[in-house]
Amino acid sequence: MKLGLAQINTTVGDLSGNKAIILDAYNRLVEQGAELIIFPELVVCGYPPRDLLLKSRFANDVKQSLDSIAREISEVPALIGCIEIASSSQKGRPLYNAAAWCESGTILSYGRKCLLPNYDVFDEERYFEPATKPLVYQWKDKRIGITICEDIWTDEKVQTSKRYCHDPVELLSKEGLDLLINLSASPWHTHKEHSRQDLIEQVSHRLNCPVVYCNSVGGNDELIFDGDSFITHPSKGIIAQMPKFKQSLNTFDIETATRIATETECPENTLKHMHDALILGLRDYAQKSNFTKGIIGLSGGIDSAVVAAIATEALGADNIIGVAMPSAISSDHSISDAQALAQNLKIEFQNIPIKDPVGSIETHLAPSFKGLERDVTEENIQARLRGVLLMALSNKHNALLLTTGNKSEIAVGYCTLYGDMCGGLAVISDLPKMQVYALAKYINRDGIIIPQNTIDKAPSAELSPDQKDEDSLPPYPILDAILHHYIEEGLSRAEISDQGFDSDIVNFIIKKVDQNEYKRKQAAPGLKISPLAFGIGRRMPIVQKYIN
Amino acid sequence: MKLGLAQINTTVGDLSGNKAIILDAYNRLVEQGAELIIFPELVVCGYPPRDLLLKSRFANDVKQSLDSIAREISEVPALIGCIEIASSSQKGRPLYNAAAWCESGTILSYGRKCLLPNYDVFDEERYFEPATKPLVYQWKDKRIGITICEDIWTDEKVQTSKRYCHDPVELLSKEGLDLLINLSASPWHTHKEHSRQDLIEQVSHRLNCPVVYCNSVGGNDELIFDGDSFITHPSKGIIAQMPKFKQSLNTFDIETATRIATETECPENTLKHMHDALILGLRDYAQKSNFTKGIIGLSGGIDSAVVAAIATEALGADNIIGVAMPSAISSDHSISDAQALAQNLKIEFQNIPIKDPVGSIETHLAPSFKGLERDVTEENIQARLRGVLLMALSNKHNALLLTTGNKSEIAVGYCTLYGDMCGGLAVISDLPKMQVYALAKYINRDGIIIPQNTIDKAPSAELSPDQKDEDSLPPYPILDAILHHYIEEGLSRAEISDQGFDSDIVNFIIKKVDQNEYKRKQAAPGLKISPLAFGIGRRMPIVQKYIN
Repeated sequence: MKLGLAQINTTVGDLSGNKAIILDAYNRLVEQGAELIIFPELVVCGYPPRDLLLKSRFANDVKQSLDSIAREISEVPALIGCIEIASSSQKGRPLYNAAAWCESGTILSYGRKCLLPNYDVFDEERYFEPATKPLVYQWKDKRIGITICEDIWTDEKVQTSKRYCHDPVELLSKEGLDLLINLSASPWHTHKEHSRQDLIEQVSHRLNCPVVYCNSVGGNDELIFDGDSFITHPSKGIIAQMPKFKQSLNTFDIETATRIATETECPENTLKHMHDALILGLRDYAQKSNFTKGIIGLSGGIDSAVVAAIATEALGADNIIGVAMPSAISSDHSISDAQALAQNLKIEFQNIPIKDPVGSIETHLAPSFKGLERDVTEENIQARLRGVLLMALSNKHNALLLTTGNKSEIAVGYCTLYGDMCGGLAVISDLPKMQVYALAKYINRDGIIIPQNTIDKAPSAELSPDQKDEDSLPPYPILDAILHHYIEEGLSRAEISDQGFDSDIVNFIIKKVDQNEYKRKQAAPGLKISPLAFGIGRRMPIVQKYIN
Repeated sequence: MKLGLAQINTTVGDLSGNKAIILDAYNRLVEQGAELIIFPELVVCGYPPRDLLLKSRFANDVKQSLDSIAREISEVPALIGCIEIASSSQKGRPLYNAAAWCESGTILSYGRKCLLPNYDVFDEERYFEPATKPLVYQWKDKRIGITICEDIWTDEKVQTSKRYCHDPVELLSKEGLDLLINLSASPWHTHKEHSRQDLIEQVSHRLNCPVVYCNSVGGNDELIFDGDSFITHPSKGIIAQMPKFKQSLNTFDIETATRIATETECPENTLKHMHDALILGLRDYAQKSNFTKGIIGLSGGIDSAVVAAIATEALGADNIIGVAMPSAISSDHSISDAQALAQNLKIEFQNIPIKDPVGSIETHLAPSFKGLERDVTEENIQARLRGVLLMALSNKHNALLLTTGNKSEIAVGYCTLYGDMCGGLAVISDLPKMQVYALAKYINRDGIIIPQNTIDKAPSAELSPDQKDEDSLPPYPILDAILHHYIEEGLSRAEISDQGFDSDIVNFIIKKVDQNEYKRKQAAPGLKISPLAFGIGRRMPIVQKYIN
């Protein structure tokens, strides 16, 4: 049996555009000789549609789009991720997250998702009614189980397992399947490919049949879908695999395919994936919102350098503007490093000093500030004035302003709201500082792009004379470790201190994290590359007083 | 039977503070002669705790706090909204949203919530496992049904009814109850009190027993809880009611109490509720985050005037700073109206002209802007420079900056990101422009506080010469109506045009709403007073292309 997998990149809500992509993929895969063609979850409307699902016409429009796609499907069947509208007499939520079996111009059957993720970035119980069991579809002489994404994430070792009271894989194991298909839109994070591969190999063993995993690719807001679709066979192992972070249309014969070599888990591959993920996420965010140009404030530091390098790969050097905005206290290297970076990247470079406008602002505030000491207020004025300049350039040149904050500084609030936090997309907001350094080295793997001095010098916001990050924060390796325990693992202060960290430092850091929730509330959306990013997957109260 | 109702204001996560409030309320109600004392939903930890529930120690800490509260409870029982931790062998999510029956120093039983709201601002399926039926507790000779909030919102006429596949009230109707208790933390919106009262009277009839509704009061982030707890009797009707938007401890004898007069639904009461709700929401946001002072940019327009009036009532005239920031093109009345308002409110008034710093910024940008026309960029520079000044004052004086945008302008993006959108709390972001005018008239009900000229003049952003809102937007009554249909009702363009609106205008407005999702992503949290506010209850993709 020759299966065609359409690992495609759809846009949320773009029903006509998605239809064109789906039909083009279908026709190409038919030409490649596919006998059954598989698409990812919810491709007709893009994933995640979020509250578009609550609009009065949306589900009907998606259904109409699916109907018009189905009319173009020949006798080669296509299994297409879509919405199914429940009958109006039925209790519960009115929609299913479904897979439509389309064949000979019509929809022959729907498989419905059983397990609806409602954790992290997922809100599927907000919209959909769960099915009690997956569809088993008889096609020619084959019994095919049809599952959607989460339905197969029921292994005991998987973090989410305890959340569900039943197991669709268990139900399917009694069905004598010849093939299991899984349509997915599974947001990527680092290392996910390996746990996913292990999981699906387990499913293949439990069902004693091949499993086809067809995943979305592309960026939609914070989420990056990595593709990486594959087929696993109970005795042969992985017999087919598609590229990561790229659209791809491939045909595989599951009877004749043999075991292939798969990628090993190593730091170099992790960095490559992170790099490629950020490029895809940034490119799609820009292109899907009709920006061709990007603009970045260049401080001479590591964060803005990494963002500029990613942006240049994503949008092309001709489309990136780097802007240095030295103040009265900026170091010489802040300009020279920024300029060297721009030269290495071959991007436009502008230098707009801020001394005079900052002076003008301070003069006008002097009567209000009479008798009061200089403090963080004046530091913020510099950062915010830079925000005003960057946004003016963004407005005038219709260029997407990219923010450059990393996860460590956003966690502890070492960033100025309406200052360096200005921008439409936060490119590295899910990378702790040490990961930013690692990525910088990866970017320089074939030669210097990010100046060595940018990598070597001590990090500084340069908002007051001779300021260094480590004057007021612990060294980044320690900070990042504490933040990981607190934010991603949800550990308490005592539990973190028990891991060998100084309890005063732990208390200091955690207090900062909690106090700065209000800044993150107003942060730009950030590309998610970890299991728990700031953003839609982390929903903390802003005003709260829990201490532990 | 004398029931004590503790309509109290707790803070999310403040376990020790909430414990003190709970025990103080308990002791006072015992002194008042209460025989059974009822608290709102999740009072031990505050509502909504959101992702605090995912922290490793949180549920245990809440349990310990509950245990220590229970130890102080005498033979007069208390029913306390709390978290129950499921046994570790159990499948499903590990927590219940529960009510603990505490008596004689211990917890005797738990009632568990059956219906978990997972729509609008609610995410309860993210954290809790639902119960299959409510607790019926035998106390002395009484059979008491114990429900939590959503459990009784099952009437067919209630919008959310279709979401649930079972009905706890139906189950309880076969139990021969003597009393039904409902512990709630039910966020207020305009007119909710009346639908709630109707609903609970229906429940009382279905069960043929009195129903006690005990609701939280206070503001937590975007949400305002109105209290308004009451008791309804199947034959006598409403026999007890507690104040709105205020903490209150009251004792009622349900055998002897007689029908009381309840408030009628009329425009004047609607405005009074909205006014009182905003004061409570703003005061609690400030106080619970340790701000005593507030700061507001005063443009001479209606929005900032209404916010200043609300803030003055919430925090006191001595704690409010109003700041006018005239530009080269500001009208004379923008200053004189702002100044008159400040005088009427008896608040501090500052005047900081922005002409010079705006000029300095434009001069520094001139090389980058060479050959390009003036456009919205220059308008935004003015708005953003005002943001810089207000944030500097906020930083220096430790005063909470309040944003003044209304729902109409936030909907269509007639606001400048990092400009007039700067601030920690958006006070009127859920009020369409016409509601702002109505509220202004209500504020002036006993004499002029908001200058008549502010109310009478045509709204203008004053960011370009002779600019008026209606130059580029339809008149506000039309705009507000279209926005209501689109945002709150989720209607399509065609459905809105069918209601008699010009389809070009409808298309223009809806395009603006969709295009400006990115601004709302970075908006300050706003006080929710409508059934659907921008904020945590509306989760639209930012980059999306759905047109309908």
